[in-house]
Amino acid sequence: MRVVIVGGVAGGMSAAARLRRLDESAEIVVVEKSGYVSFANCGLPYHVGGVIEERSALLLQTPQALYDRFRLDVRVGVEAVQINRQSREVIVRDVATGREETLSYDKLVLSPGAKPLMPPIPGIERALPLRNVEDTDRMLEAVQGAETAVVIGGGFVGLEVAENLLHRGMKVALVEALPQVMAPLDPEMVDPVHDAMRAAGIDLRLGSGVTIIGEHDVTLADGATVPADVVVAAIGVRPDTELAKASGLKVGPRGGLLVDHRQLTNDPHIYAVGDAVEKNDALSDEAVLVPLANTANLQGRRVADDIAGRGKPARPVRGTAIVGLLGLQVAATGWNEKRLRDAGRAYLAIHTHPASHATYYPGASTMALKLLVDPATGEILGAQGVGREGIDKRIDVIATAMTAGMTAPELAELELAYAPQFGSAKDAVNMLGFIAENRLSGWEKSVQWHEVAERQAEGAVVIDVRTPGEYAAGAIPGAMNIPVDELRDRMDEIPGGDVPLILHCGVGIRSHAALAALRDSGREVLNLDGGYTTWRAGTGI
Amino acid sequence: MRVVIVGGVAGGMSAAARLRRLDESAEIVVVEKSGYVSFANCGLPYHVGGVIEERSALLLQTPQALYDRFRLDVRVGVEAVQINRQSREVIVRDVATGREETLSYDKLVLSPGAKPLMPPIPGIERALPLRNVEDTDRMLEAVQGAETAVVIGGGFVGLEVAENLLHRGMKVALVEALPQVMAPLDPEMVDPVHDAMRAAGIDLRLGSGVTIIGEHDVTLADGATVPADVVVAAIGVRPDTELAKASGLKVGPRGGLLVDHRQLTNDPHIYAVGDAVEKNDALSDEAVLVPLANTANLQGRRVADDIAGRGKPARPVRGTAIVGLLGLQVAATGWNEKRLRDAGRAYLAIHTHPASHATYYPGASTMALKLLVDPATGEILGAQGVGREGIDKRIDVIATAMTAGMTAPELAELELAYAPQFGSAKDAVNMLGFIAENRLSGWEKSVQWHEVAERQAEGAVVIDVRTPGEYAAGAIPGAMNIPVDELRDRMDEIPGGDVPLILHCGVGIRSHAALAALRDSGREVLNLDGGYTTWRAGTGI
Ligand SMILES: Cc1cc2nc3c(=O)[nH]c(=O)nc-3n(C[C@H](O)[C@H](O)[C@H](O)COP(=O)(O)OP(=O)(O)OC[C@H]3O[C@@H](n4cnc5c(N)ncnc54)[C@H](O)[C@@H]3O)c2cc1C
Ligand SMILES: Cc1cc2nc3c(=O)[nH]c(=O)nc-3n(C[C@H](O)[C@H](O)[C@H](O)COP(=O)(O)OP(=O)(O)OC[C@H]3O[C@@H](n4cnc5c(N)ncnc54)[C@H](O)[C@@H]3O)c2cc1C
Ligand SMILES: CC(C)(COP(=O)(O)OP(=O)(O)OC[C@H]1O[C@@H](n2cnc3c(N)ncnc32)[C@H](O)[C@@H]1OP(=O)(O)O)[C@@H](O)C(=O)NCCC(=O)NCCS
Ligand SMILES: CC(C)(COP(=O)(O)OP(=O)(O)OC[C@H]1O[C@@H](n2cnc3c(N)ncnc32)[C@H](O)[C@@H]1OP(=O)(O)O)[C@@H](O)C(=O)NCCC(=O)NCCS
Repeated sequence: MRVVIVGGVAGGMSAAARLRRLDESAEIVVVEKSGYVSFANCGLPYHVGGVIEERSALLLQTPQALYDRFRLDVRVGVEAVQINRQSREVIVRDVATGREETLSYDKLVLSPGAKPLMPPIPGIERALPLRNVEDTDRMLEAVQGAETAVVIGGGFVGLEVAENLLHRGMKVALVEALPQVMAPLDPEMVDPVHDAMRAAGIDLRLGSGVTIIGEHDVTLADGATVPADVVVAAIGVRPDTELAKASGLKVGPRGGLLVDHRQLTNDPHIYAVGDAVEKNDALSDEAVLVPLANTANLQGRRVADDIAGRGKPARPVRGTAIVGLLGLQVAATGWNEKRLRDAGRAYLAIHTHPASHATYYPGASTMALKLLVDPATGEILGAQGVGREGIDKRIDVIATAMTAGMTAPELAELELAYAPQFGSAKDAVNMLGFIAENRLSGWEKSVQWHEVAERQAEGAVVIDVRTPGEYAAGAIPGAMNIPVDELRDRMDEIPGGDVPLILHCGVGIRSHAALAALRDSGREVLNLDGGYTTWRAGTGI
Repeated sequence: MRVVIVGGVAGGMSAAARLRRLDESAEIVVVEKSGYVSFANCGLPYHVGGVIEERSALLLQTPQALYDRFRLDVRVGVEAVQINRQSREVIVRDVATGREETLSYDKLVLSPGAKPLMPPIPGIERALPLRNVEDTDRMLEAVQGAETAVVIGGGFVGLEVAENLLHRGMKVALVEALPQVMAPLDPEMVDPVHDAMRAAGIDLRLGSGVTIIGEHDVTLADGATVPADVVVAAIGVRPDTELAKASGLKVGPRGGLLVDHRQLTNDPHIYAVGDAVEKNDALSDEAVLVPLANTANLQGRRVADDIAGRGKPARPVRGTAIVGLLGLQVAATGWNEKRLRDAGRAYLAIHTHPASHATYYPGASTMALKLLVDPATGEILGAQGVGREGIDKRIDVIATAMTAGMTAPELAELELAYAPQFGSAKDAVNMLGFIAENRLSGWEKSVQWHEVAERQAEGAVVIDVRTPGEYAAGAIPGAMNIPVDELRDRMDEIPGGDVPLILHCGVGIRSHAALAALRDSGREVLNLDGGYTTWRAGTGI
């Protein structure tokens, strides 16, 4: 059997290595149009910044090493230019010489990845993408002696590049047309990320796209110009489907290759995996684009299994992702609130700000966690986290619980490893479970940060149960201050009648305790979800 | 309703706080015989070592603060000395004055915790336990000016105390009667912990208990004497059941209070939680003692729910635990191999040594992970990990998967958050899933470190597929060396006939690749699980 694989990095090379382990006799040819295979895409920004010092550290394999270990026929600088499905042949072209060759196949695996989006704005040809080793070399050359850079795009690659250029001592601006960076997270979660970027000296330009790339600057939609010796394009990626489309392979609604649960395209001899394909969303079963390495690797491995007759149906995706930025960890899995709202799906949002580990042990920091829950079933719809420590762990635990079908209240039951350096006796994830249980049972009613002003306008009274010092340092307009520990003695100060009361503290714990004192009052008493911290992050006040 | 709670720390105070939140009108009295409530037991060793500098950091609450916030009637220095179940009264005694008082109750909650084991060896009265704040004060006094310490017991408290005394500049010996520290882990997993302790200068005495505690030293069963200005007893704990037993409450086979799925004792008005009670093992449903803070806290909360009429059945326990030691993270969940073997339960053991995060990003370190799997069903029976980074995360993810009932091969499917600082595109947990899938399907056969010598004696040939340099630096006796990348060219060097071949490399990945070249040979080919690393840790050679 002869298997030809197009694309020699995450999906393609995972398929090749696994296939060899499953089938010693298969002939396996991998063609890769760039000069390198199996390189560490995800490390490229860090080489630009000098965090990964050695270029060689990015190059995990060579064609020779892959031949020696796996008897793979790996051809770099060779592009697949045409697929003749009838004859089961793929025409490949040597990029340097232009020489073409026809390779026949029994099975063809496409893992061509994605292409950087390059919007048609004047001067775009000066913008540098970062997708492979050659791009990295070019960027490293461009930044030599350069002083200013504009990074276009606030996705995870844009953020990583911005931090790494800063690390090189450059003056960096980041331009994002949306009002926030890191679109997988909701705006109030990203607020500390914006703060950290600004504090680090990044000139953050939100809500205004680039209209012109000039020779030494870029012009934004709002008319501003920002100096730019170097311009980086990190706007996003789109599936690389040209080769496939030209041979009649079907593309889905999101512009990625359509594959079935075996990763087969509409040609039963052609598989496709990774950033080039549409995946099935775990929640809605819709087609989605999730250009992440974990999925690409696993799909590659799965295709090898299928070719070797050991296939299993594909699993849907949730898009668990993380980025490290300026000492922060920013992560998400599943759906965010924006997406749930747009889809008209009912949800309950929970915000918490627990400590990353026991507060009495040195080094603990406050995390921001958000959980989205189906109010009817308790199904976990998504989670987000931002903090200096322990975010990766909490998001991984929640992603695991989601995959396993645990409900949010079941998080309360998890026995997580506790010692004071690592967590709390009631871990942050248990705590999300407690809150979900309280909310889903209807026992604690809550209000979101963006609902406060409207509720106040309708007559609700906000009671801030923090200390007078905290209140003085900044409070919700119109809120009265009765510290939780004095509440039971100062009940008479609470406005009478049956207007609803919104209680809040810094994060929601003290107001949760305060609720007990008022629950029997017969009036509507609400806890402000996430407290003053989430309210301030959301309103930006 | 009047609820009396005995014991004002993890289980007791969690019950009290939650009960107030559920029921504003309940009268809640907490009696605590020590001078402090709600203190951070788990932080005590770190205060001894000065890592937690302020004693006040350990004292999370005071009776006054708990009154102000929760209207709890908290009495410290007050011991419950007798329960009159007929009249539903508990007699409490002021420890300082001896004055007694009778408190009636509608519900009584016992959370008296555990007592340090103090074996009846001569001189034991000089050994200092560490269980509460007073113990900590005493230990801090005893170490003033002292130069040498012997810590008896290699459980997590013993290890923490040993590290912290070392941190104070003392000469520390740790004596453990078993041949290993950290009994929840199997011996080959603990080997790096022993190494780290010795490298840090701890005089580690394994396999020999203390027989006599002298005035300035201790004598071990093997006759050795070790200097000891200070002796610490960290041998373990036993449930504190005296008060309960005296009033006719039932004790189970393990010596803990017997409770039902509502945490009720054999008296329907008396609950018991935490270290004092027997828990149900998640795997075998047997009674077990799991004296950990997470479970104590959750049981306390659950009892409050039950009292307030919102109860849910108790969840069985797995005993997820972690300790930080000398920069290592040492963690486990579920059953270990020793216990499975003793119980005669079939299992498959998997050892891996993956990187904590992508190796091309600075700071990655090698982890040791072990997974125990039911060979028939794929059920995950237990997991263990040792490493400098990311162990807590992997154990928490696996513990979550276990609680959710995921099988080991399903770990392959998890979408975990990947960026190079945090993990690998195929995360260590995915990797465990791959290996489990390969082994459970029978496609890769393996042999354990402790089976090699016997298999060799029966004629099996060991082929070390590492590089000649690695082989020269240390190899399994009798192993021949053919590097994986040369294997296919040197097939003729492999002894003929049908004797089984045991392949191994450093950790199992290269030999896993090498298997492909030999799988069609018709002879038995085995991968040495965990490679040379696990073999060496296990055999100690
Ligand atoms: C800078 C950067 C940082 C990233 N960081 C992360 C991260 O932290 N976490 C994460 O999960 N993901 C990250 N990713 C995404 C991740 O790298 C991709 O999801 C993954 O590599 C996709 O795998 P793939 O096999 O589909 O495509 P790729 O790995 O991109 O491989 C596709 C290959 O196919 C080749 N090719 C295309 N067409 C042809 C053709 N016709 N003939 C021959 N060869 C062809 C291309 O040259 C390319 O090398 C990052 C990506 C980039 C660029
Ligand atoms: C040094 C140390 C370190 C630890 N580290 C960890 C760790 O890292 N991770 C982890 O999970 N667990 C750890 N633990 C264990 C954890 O602290 C316990 O599992 C947990 O505190 C048990 O809760 P409990 O309520 O059952 O008992 P405790 O928290 O011990 O509380 C029981 C209280 O009851 C009081 N009491 C007993 N009898 C009476 C009576 N008759 N009248 C009045 N009061 C009474 C006692 O004085 C005691 O204060 C550690 C324990 C110690 C001692
Ligand atoms: C380098 C590359 C070719 C390696 O592919 P690979 O051989 O499948 O992956 P690994 O080296 O991690 O090895 C995994 C294999 O070892 C096995 N393994 C791991 N530890 C083992 C152990 N202790 N014992 C036995 N087997 C083990 C796994 O089961 C798996 O084999 P399987 O797929 O047959 O089940 C491929 O991953 C690649 O190109 N990566 C770089 C590109 C990339 O991913 N970029 C995006 C992220 S930066
Ligand atoms: C201090 C102590 C009395 C606090 O008990 P507690 O009030 O139950 O615990 P916390 O302060 O963590 O608060 C948890 C509560 O806040 C709620 N909460 C947390 N974050 C919230 C948020 N953002 N919004 C709303 N509610 C929130 C939780 O749901 C939970 O309430 P519930 O039980 O009613 O569901 C008790 O934990 C204790 O004594 N601890 C120290 C002893 C100990 O555990 N030692 C062993 C380990 S060192």
